[in-house]
Amino acid sequence: MAKVLTSRKENYAQWYNDLVIKADLAENSAVRGCMVIKPLGYAIWEKMQAALDRMFKETGHSNVYFPLFIPKSFLSREAAHVEGFAKECAVVTHYRLKNSASGKGIEVDETAKLEEELIIRPTSETIIWNTYKNWIQSYRDLPLLYNQWANVVRWEMRTRLFLRTTEFLWQEGHTAHATKEEAIEETLKILEIYADFARNWMAMPVVQGTKTESERFAGAVDTYSIEALMQDGKALQSGTSHFLGQNFAKAFDVTFLNKQGKLEYVWATSWGVSTRLMGALIMAHSDDNGLVLPPKLAPLQVVIIPIYKKVEELDAINSQAEIIRQQLLDIGITVKYDNRDTHKPGWKFTDYELKGVPVRLAIGPRDIENNTVELARRDTLTKETYPVEGIAGKIRNLMEEIQLNIYNRAVAFKNSNTLIAGSYEEFKEIINTRGGFVLAHWDGTKETEEKINNETKATIRCIPLDSEKEPGHCMVTGRPSAQRVIFAKAY
Amino acid sequence: MAKVLTSRKENYAQWYNDLVIKADLAENSAVRGCMVIKPLGYAIWEKMQAALDRMFKETGHSNVYFPLFIPKSFLSREAAHVEGFAKECAVVTHYRLKNSASGKGIEVDETAKLEEELIIRPTSETIIWNTYKNWIQSYRDLPLLYNQWANVVRWEMRTRLFLRTTEFLWQEGHTAHATKEEAIEETLKILEIYADFARNWMAMPVVQGTKTESERFAGAVDTYSIEALMQDGKALQSGTSHFLGQNFAKAFDVTFLNKQGKLEYVWATSWGVSTRLMGALIMAHSDDNGLVLPPKLAPLQVVIIPIYKKVEELDAINSQAEIIRQQLLDIGITVKYDNRDTHKPGWKFTDYELKGVPVRLAIGPRDIENNTVELARRDTLTKETYPVEGIAGKIRNLMEEIQLNIYNRAVAFKNSNTLIAGSYEEFKEIINTRGGFVLAHWDGTKETEEKINNETKATIRCIPLDSEKEPGHCMVTGRPSAQRVIFAKAY
Repeated sequence: MAKVLTSRKENYAQWYNDLVIKADLAENSAVRGCMVIKPLGYAIWEKMQAALDRMFKETGHSNVYFPLFIPKSFLSREAAHVEGFAKECAVVTHYRLKNSASGKGIEVDETAKLEEELIIRPTSETIIWNTYKNWIQSYRDLPLLYNQWANVVRWEMRTRLFLRTTEFLWQEGHTAHATKEEAIEETLKILEIYADFARNWMAMPVVQGTKTESERFAGAVDTYSIEALMQDGKALQSGTSHFLGQNFAKAFDVTFLNKQGKLEYVWATSWGVSTRLMGALIMAHSDDNGLVLPPKLAPLQVVIIPIYKKVEELDAINSQAEIIRQQLLDIGITVKYDNRDTHKPGWKFTDYELKGVPVRLAIGPRDIENNTVELARRDTLTKETYPVEGIAGKIRNLMEEIQLNIYNRAVAFKNSNTLIAGSYEEFKEIINTRGGFVLAHWDGTKETEEKINNETKATIRCIPLDSEKEPGHCMVTGRPSAQRVIFAKAY
Repeated sequence: MAKVLTSRKENYAQWYNDLVIKADLAENSAVRGCMVIKPLGYAIWEKMQAALDRMFKETGHSNVYFPLFIPKSFLSREAAHVEGFAKECAVVTHYRLKNSASGKGIEVDETAKLEEELIIRPTSETIIWNTYKNWIQSYRDLPLLYNQWANVVRWEMRTRLFLRTTEFLWQEGHTAHATKEEAIEETLKILEIYADFARNWMAMPVVQGTKTESERFAGAVDTYSIEALMQDGKALQSGTSHFLGQNFAKAFDVTFLNKQGKLEYVWATSWGVSTRLMGALIMAHSDDNGLVLPPKLAPLQVVIIPIYKKVEELDAINSQAEIIRQQLLDIGITVKYDNRDTHKPGWKFTDYELKGVPVRLAIGPRDIENNTVELARRDTLTKETYPVEGIAGKIRNLMEEIQLNIYNRAVAFKNSNTLIAGSYEEFKEIINTRGGFVLAHWDGTKETEEKINNETKATIRCIPLDSEKEPGHCMVTGRPSAQRVIFAKAY
């Protein structure tokens, strides 16, 4: 059977794009840089949303919804924030169209010009903190632990499906606190939720760390991120959690009476993950046959396919398949029996592999005779025949086994591609040949960071939170360094 | 205790606004016509979404996501469609801001002007059908049964929280079919889902019917709607399902090879409900004390409040409350024990009434002695004391009883406010004095419809599907009429 995808070795970027398109996850739309998320892609995103949403709610957060539009003047209130976002803002200037004077088509009605332009939210700190001002008077009103699921727009020049799109879907948490300590605790709590979600749902190990100043969110005091390693040795920032200090409270004049009866500015955090996670999920696990999905995020976990030559054989297969299907449904496993006669089994095998269904069962006349079923695992591409007796329990265990196997494989990959560079020479050698996470000493300055970036295209992904704090000397300048930081080329 | 809300009798519109604000459901934002949906409002909306989403999926629909932006030229492709929406479109003209020349604030960067303006979607038929063109070649590709949960923008001049806002949240289904019959069947299937949801989740009876030509969706062949009656005698259109014929297929040149191998235009439907349903829910059931929620849509179903004078009494109450709370959680009822010492019981009673919690339990020292609990129903505002023994089962039954009671009350209200007008005089009398649904004969012309609207402010809500088809004579012109239609003043 002809390969459907460009192989990863041949052209990793092309493989990714092929996979997203051919597995029917998403496609480019008629609007530059905006994607259409197709049913399978959206179903995976819904599973991600459900798991994250539950984690947020279990830690006391509620969902809310703030407007899509932000008055232009709001953006200028926080200096770093406007600096970071002004250049990629979509701007609404008019609120009406009219028939063209030419009589053909429609045109903007110039009499319907907005007094103040509206920005499509690139992120919602400004509109939210302008609102929090009215919600917060005293320490009794705190904390506010709110999140919203929303679309945002950042006008990107070079876009890639899921990884970088002009419009994307995300959640953005915006919390308000009475103390600095509590806000920092919240920032780290969310970072841990993100890491937990990446590990236990996406089967994707991540490094948690602090961003350097140059990679910090526009308006944050500290940005923390989770960083994952893709199969091509490039890093992908998969979620960020920001300690905003009192920056937005000061910009929007949000104060509260503390327990001592003194007026104080409110402390803030914000945090988000987006449909970019779809790109991470795809690139972390998939292979040249297509998508590999961790069972916990697979919209369809098991597919059953009949194999037969004569239509007479189908009846018995149908009955057997229906029994197994029902047993799987009863234990909460999503399953489909695909007995369409418009497609051959081989075509179906390829298609479900492409779409990442974790387990495939095939039933033929011989299986009916022997009361067996052929089981194929998507993660290992192995096949084995099992008795029908006890197959549901077998598959239930297999779901956990596959989830774990995918995770362990990703951990092994990350471990074997996390190297320590002793010198700048060694560093360049690793970055240029095999990539991966490279741990190296850095002197903490923007200049050195920039120099390394210019010379190698690698950036500091983060200053890891959980690594040894052994001091050393910057590989470039020789100046003292408190701990190694993580470099990588990145998406 | 002072009344928190303006009474319905005094000023119904003010009562509604007071309730939305004071029950913390939503508020106006800094952006004209856009609202902020607060935690309680959003939690109710999430419950609505979950129930509807399940119903859509059970009937074979999948979720997808299409871009927020629509190229201006797409809108002009379907003549009626552009006519209907052009006047209320928010238009993106630029994609970058820059520092003002004055050095103060930011301004639109005129060098970053879009070649073609982008419209913020007021609805997505055009971008979707432009995409469907690539997805549909043969009858084998049909049907497409897709839905999206999204935000849309229609520039409204007069807005009201939930009922009419510039940005609102909704779901929009867009399906494609090989035959006219199948598309009509889909249109009606969804209408039935909407009516079912209104009845069984919102506890709100609705009338299903066809819209007259003048009230039809811009681009539809037929628009069906569910219409609900609010307590002030005004109707509220709560959901619409459109049979679009081949209009959009023709506009976007979407054809398919049918089973006979002939090229044919695809048949379409679209359908939606929005955050407007929140307004319907509020106005259908609530009273002068605040929100009344059907238990199935109540984020919090039971609240337990301790009543005590001395702190020593609290220990026993806490233990008792915890036992009951756990019993309720075990049977899937959402419950909160509110033993904050910052607020008096009376304040809490008022607040939970305002927020529509269906059942309130109060436990005092006397209850501890007698092993009882005082139970208050939000729907009837009655209180009764019950033994703690068996209270969870009692409450489970009560949830169904309250759901049904609210529904029956709304049905009785609708029935007693649905009147037949024998003459135009009688019609005007009813519309001007008591409102409600008025069944009357109409000659089927736009002119008569307009005349009635101008003279009475009533509109034809729908031509009901399930009413008797007894013929008669138009109350205004005396011309023949096939059946009575439903008039009302409407939101």
